[in-house]
Amino acid sequence: MGRSVFALILALALAVCVAPVERKCLLSGSWRSDTGCRMVVYTLDKDNRFSGFYLPGPAAGDSQLFTSPLEGSQQDTGLIPQPIFFFTVNWRLRDSEAARTTVFLGQCYVDTKGEETLHALWLLREAADSPAEDWKATRIGTSIFTRIK
Amino acid sequence: MGRSVFALILALALAVCVAPVERKCLLSGSWRSDTGCRMVVYTLDKDNRFSGFYLPGPAAGDSQLFTSPLEGSQQDTGLIPQPIFFFTVNWRLRDSEAARTTVFLGQCYVDTKGEETLHALWLLREAADSPAEDWKATRIGTSIFTRIK
Amino acid sequence: MGRSVFALILALALAVCVAPVERKCLLSGSWRSDTGCRMVVYTLDKDNRFSGFYLPGPAAGDSQLFTSPLEGSQQDTGLIPQPIFFFTVNWRLRDSEAARTTVFLGQCYVDTKGEETLHALWLLREAADSPAEDWKATRIGTSIFTRIK
Amino acid sequence: MGRSVFALILALALAVCVAPVERKCLLSGSWRSDTGCRMVVYTLDKDNRFSGFYLPGPAAGDSQLFTSPLEGSQQDTGLIPQPIFFFTVNWRLRDSEAARTTVFLGQCYVDTKGEETLHALWLLREAADSPAEDWKATRIGTSIFTRIK
Repeated sequence: MGRSVFALILALALAVCVAPVERKCLLSGSWRSDTGCRMVVYTLDKDNRFSGFYLPGPAAGDSQLFTSPLEGSQQDTGLIPQPIFFFTVNWRLRDSEAARTTVFLGQCYVDTKGEETLHALWLLREAADSPAEDWKATRIGTSIFTRIK
Repeated sequence: MGRSVFALILALALAVCVAPVERKCLLSGSWRSDTGCRMVVYTLDKDNRFSGFYLPGPAAGDSQLFTSPLEGSQQDTGLIPQPIFFFTVNWRLRDSEAARTTVFLGQCYVDTKGEETLHALWLLREAADSPAEDWKATRIGTSIFTRIK
Repeated sequence: MGRSVFALILALALAVCVAPVERKCLLSGSWRSDTGCRMVVYTLDKDNRFSGFYLPGPAAGDSQLFTSPLEGSQQDTGLIPQPIFFFTVNWRLRDSEAARTTVFLGQCYVDTKGEETLHALWLLREAADSPAEDWKATRIGTSIFTRIK
Repeated sequence: MGRSVFALILALALAVCVAPVERKCLLSGSWRSDTGCRMVVYTLDKDNRFSGFYLPGPAAGDSQLFTSPLEGSQQDTGLIPQPIFFFTVNWRLRDSEAARTTVFLGQCYVDTKGEETLHALWLLREAADSPAEDWKATRIGTSIFTRIK
């Protein structure tokens, strides 16, 4: 019996040792942007794709915006520790006629304490009527996201 | 019998007349950019998603670039005649260490002659080592695509 | 008499030879953008600075816009044949409360036939009320200008 | 009576001391960016133009960069409390052949405590050889500056 107890302890010890180190820079989880918006990203599929939703925060100052679905993908953190990612948000607006889409393109960085930060640039496009109106269709900006714990 | 033949011919003629007008602004097909690049977009799936590939043209001036896969989606042309679209290109480079991703965000316009034009802005990101280096990671530009016939 | 004819021919030949070679890529003159806007740039000062005005064309689709003053500078074409330039336009609007400023940053290219083309990216900023609203303040796009002859 | 004169003089002196309400959002002074760069802006001239210099910080990670001159202008704070501004930096590089210019376009915000913050987007252009190479000439990003006290 002593032997089986020893075996159990050994197994537990091994389990602790090989307990998977938390994989950093998987986008899954909840994030808050520097402008007070939040987003939730579901578990990545095997191709490193993800979906989720984006919630404009109080800072967005645009009560027309509903929670809106997002979709994207990222580089494999098994290969690249600080992966490039992108995602797109199709805005759901109260005024159903207008169409707005944002694409975010960014990179996830991990600092020496293991804290993850997402740095992204985004383009926001509103529908225009013709190529002559296209010049004013696109806004640009940056967002920095940190994990909500 | 002569009458039924006549009826058949009439039916055929009508069929031709009311044959569904080609749906414009489905991105499927071959396109050439104003900088001489080409892209091929496969048939859209039921959710208006598509894949394809992007071929840097002679104008790209970067012999390091291979044909690279693209993925994206567009608004439903059944609802919106001049849909917003986006797609992302994961560049395949000879130097396998570098990672570069481009996202295109644009709109398809149809003119009075039925000619389609894609107007897009793009962001191109290269991997950076840290947030301190992030400032120089992103380039920006525009592309206009016309259909290759 | 033969001598005076010879002198005349010699004078003409010299005139042709020393005729000042047109300096390319001085921004002075009249230009038309690919979206139908026009701009007029006055003679550069000794520091390669210039002023002028910008006229929204029919394509601008914004009848609120008046002719607006521009100011900028360019690299010295004595040193750099295809100079980088920038200029800023302070938009004069009918609605005097709103403030809008555009900066253009571009380069002048000369092709083998001596034709000049200005390729520029621009940022257009509207006033926002607070940092929380700043995210939506900036639009982006490109313009290509050719000389009006 | 002597006492009241003295009191008057004291009151006047105090008034002078506490009088001049500091004009906010004049760009004159020293600023630090969120990426660790510093800039010094000299006193504005009567047309709200300014010059100064830009010092890449340790975060710039580009030892090629020297202190570089900047020039710009801002809206009149007498008319607009949170003015739009722009400035351009002509980078002085060790490698004298390369030319790089950045334009910043932003707005100065004042919070309820009187703290000023500059929010800007910038475009950075490097010289390209031809229009075909122009697509890769421009980088983009944002900077946030706070006053160094």
